[in-house]
Amino acid sequence: MDENLGKVVGNKQILFKGYIEGVPKESDMELKLGNEIKLEAPKGSGAFLVKNLYLSCDPYMRGRMRDFHGSYLPPFVPGSVVEGFGVSKVIDSDNPNFKPGDIVSCFTGWEEYTLFRNTEQLRKVQPDDIPLSYHIGLLGMPGFTAYVGFYEVCAPKRDEQVFVSAASGAVGQLVGQLAKLHGCYVVGSAGSNQKVDLLKNKLGFDEAFNYKQEPDLDAALKKYFPEGIDIYFENVGGAMLDAVLVNMRVHGRIAVCGMVSQAGIGASDQQGIRNLFSLVPKRVKMHGFLQSDYLHLFPRFVEQVGSLYKEGKIAYLEDMNHGLESAPAAFAALFTGKNIGKQVVCVART
Amino acid sequence: MDENLGKVVGNKQILFKGYIEGVPKESDMELKLGNEIKLEAPKGSGAFLVKNLYLSCDPYMRGRMRDFHGSYLPPFVPGSVVEGFGVSKVIDSDNPNFKPGDIVSCFTGWEEYTLFRNTEQLRKVQPDDIPLSYHIGLLGMPGFTAYVGFYEVCAPKRDEQVFVSAASGAVGQLVGQLAKLHGCYVVGSAGSNQKVDLLKNKLGFDEAFNYKQEPDLDAALKKYFPEGIDIYFENVGGAMLDAVLVNMRVHGRIAVCGMVSQAGIGASDQQGIRNLFSLVPKRVKMHGFLQSDYLHLFPRFVEQVGSLYKEGKIAYLEDMNHGLESAPAAFAALFTGKNIGKQVVCVART
Repeated sequence: MDENLGKVVGNKQILFKGYIEGVPKESDMELKLGNEIKLEAPKGSGAFLVKNLYLSCDPYMRGRMRDFHGSYLPPFVPGSVVEGFGVSKVIDSDNPNFKPGDIVSCFTGWEEYTLFRNTEQLRKVQPDDIPLSYHIGLLGMPGFTAYVGFYEVCAPKRDEQVFVSAASGAVGQLVGQLAKLHGCYVVGSAGSNQKVDLLKNKLGFDEAFNYKQEPDLDAALKKYFPEGIDIYFENVGGAMLDAVLVNMRVHGRIAVCGMVSQAGIGASDQQGIRNLFSLVPKRVKMHGFLQSDYLHLFPRFVEQVGSLYKEGKIAYLEDMNHGLESAPAAFAALFTGKNIGKQVVCVART
Repeated sequence: MDENLGKVVGNKQILFKGYIEGVPKESDMELKLGNEIKLEAPKGSGAFLVKNLYLSCDPYMRGRMRDFHGSYLPPFVPGSVVEGFGVSKVIDSDNPNFKPGDIVSCFTGWEEYTLFRNTEQLRKVQPDDIPLSYHIGLLGMPGFTAYVGFYEVCAPKRDEQVFVSAASGAVGQLVGQLAKLHGCYVVGSAGSNQKVDLLKNKLGFDEAFNYKQEPDLDAALKKYFPEGIDIYFENVGGAMLDAVLVNMRVHGRIAVCGMVSQAGIGASDQQGIRNLFSLVPKRVKMHGFLQSDYLHLFPRFVEQVGSLYKEGKIAYLEDMNHGLESAPAAFAALFTGKNIGKQVVCVART
């Protein structure tokens, strides 16, 4: 039981300062101290109070930092607390389905404590030998994105040639490992030699390369894929996508998960993609997707990927910052590639 | 029976002069007179001789005018006769399956007479009340491209919002009419007011616009598709594609048939597409295709589209030049949009 239960305490929060242009910076968010909260779930409210343990930093959140209401998620509200996926512990509850000590994976605030009045985007986590933080990574939205993107969107076949960009990231690292388990040949690209080493020696990719050290991406792809690429799992956009397009094989598939290289760039300054015509002679399918369209597969995903992890058949790289105050810098680092693996912020261990 | 049968005659031909850059010009091909041919199918050869009646001018042929061997069709050979789809009449035969007078739809030379030794890419045409030239248009490769592109690639549903570019062209005009018959709302773009008028008043499109008179393609699309586009049948590429990408609806489909606006442009000068990230939040599928992957559906296509034509439910616009010598100019005109409807060259009527 939380020692402060029933007391009024200062609830540290990370606020979104205002709409941005360009690549997110640490200074786009700020720590606010001392917003008072009474640590209880009010009687008759059906609500429950959680202590946030781990918060997830994800590139999609950049999309909520602009004043655009036509997307699948509304923008953050300037001056309000940042939101994202998290793993949290129930400390008080007026809801019979949740009791103190329960661990939930949820869509929560970037703050120490959050009161939940509705349980729609929330799953109870059964404690086992999987680290709690993995429920916002390997077994959370990023892992599920990899799972549905690879199996449902890419429709892979054994022996196919698979290329993954941002391959050591939260999503890419699982895509590559699932592809290996499926019997594919897998190459990943990343932005440092350390990441390349991890891809080859810890995550089991057949090959990996540092795109920053390749003066000619087309030549690099031709070297690793002399017969072309069947499946491209697209996380970066820009010059890499253009090079991939001319290296696709007939009937290839491109799963468009994200384009992080273009994340901070206004539409008029986006790097134009020049080789799209290649889609026609190669009969390539390019398919943008969101994991949220496949939620009916989530239980199967947790079961299968959880088992693979417990059996030691897959690994997961996590980059953890400590303390809520470290969250803005941890988020900004996603866009410069500083993180190695899934970026998480540990607010509290228990 | 041909009056010249058995004689040696001069066979007029259109030769491909050499590899080109940029948009094709009339001068990229030349008429050669007097290449001698004996008008007979040699005994024991199994061959048959045809007189070419109608030749098809198609944008894909541009791809064969460059020195690139990695595509689905090899380049033309400089100094050799141009090849393409045609409708021809058998005038002598050593093949029991073809007899003089038979009409065939075939892949033939741009010349007066052609000797066929193999019958792989060749179909016998049953004369009926459909104009012979339609077998390289409405009932040929362009019509089949529209048929499989719309039904197989776009997977249309009733009441969906369909946009077709190059809508009065050989392919686009049938896409739009099939979409109307399927219960869709259909808008087409074209490059002249005359074409726009034909789209609305002869081909039954709900709306049409002249893209050359629209200073803001995004605004034009928002006007015709206030709720967005479910299906885009892509024939042009470039600025139109970029404008479409930000106007697609969730789960929209883009069938990439061609990108004629970019046909004459080297890869490094292609207009870059900047709005591809839209594929992700809108979960759009963009699918390059070739009709040749669907040939098992060809008999059904001829049956269905032939019936629709005979019942007066669809129309077909054809632009016919007369005389083999007019073929180079007719082909070049495709890339400036001079043709109205399917571009055909009549070499001989019978």
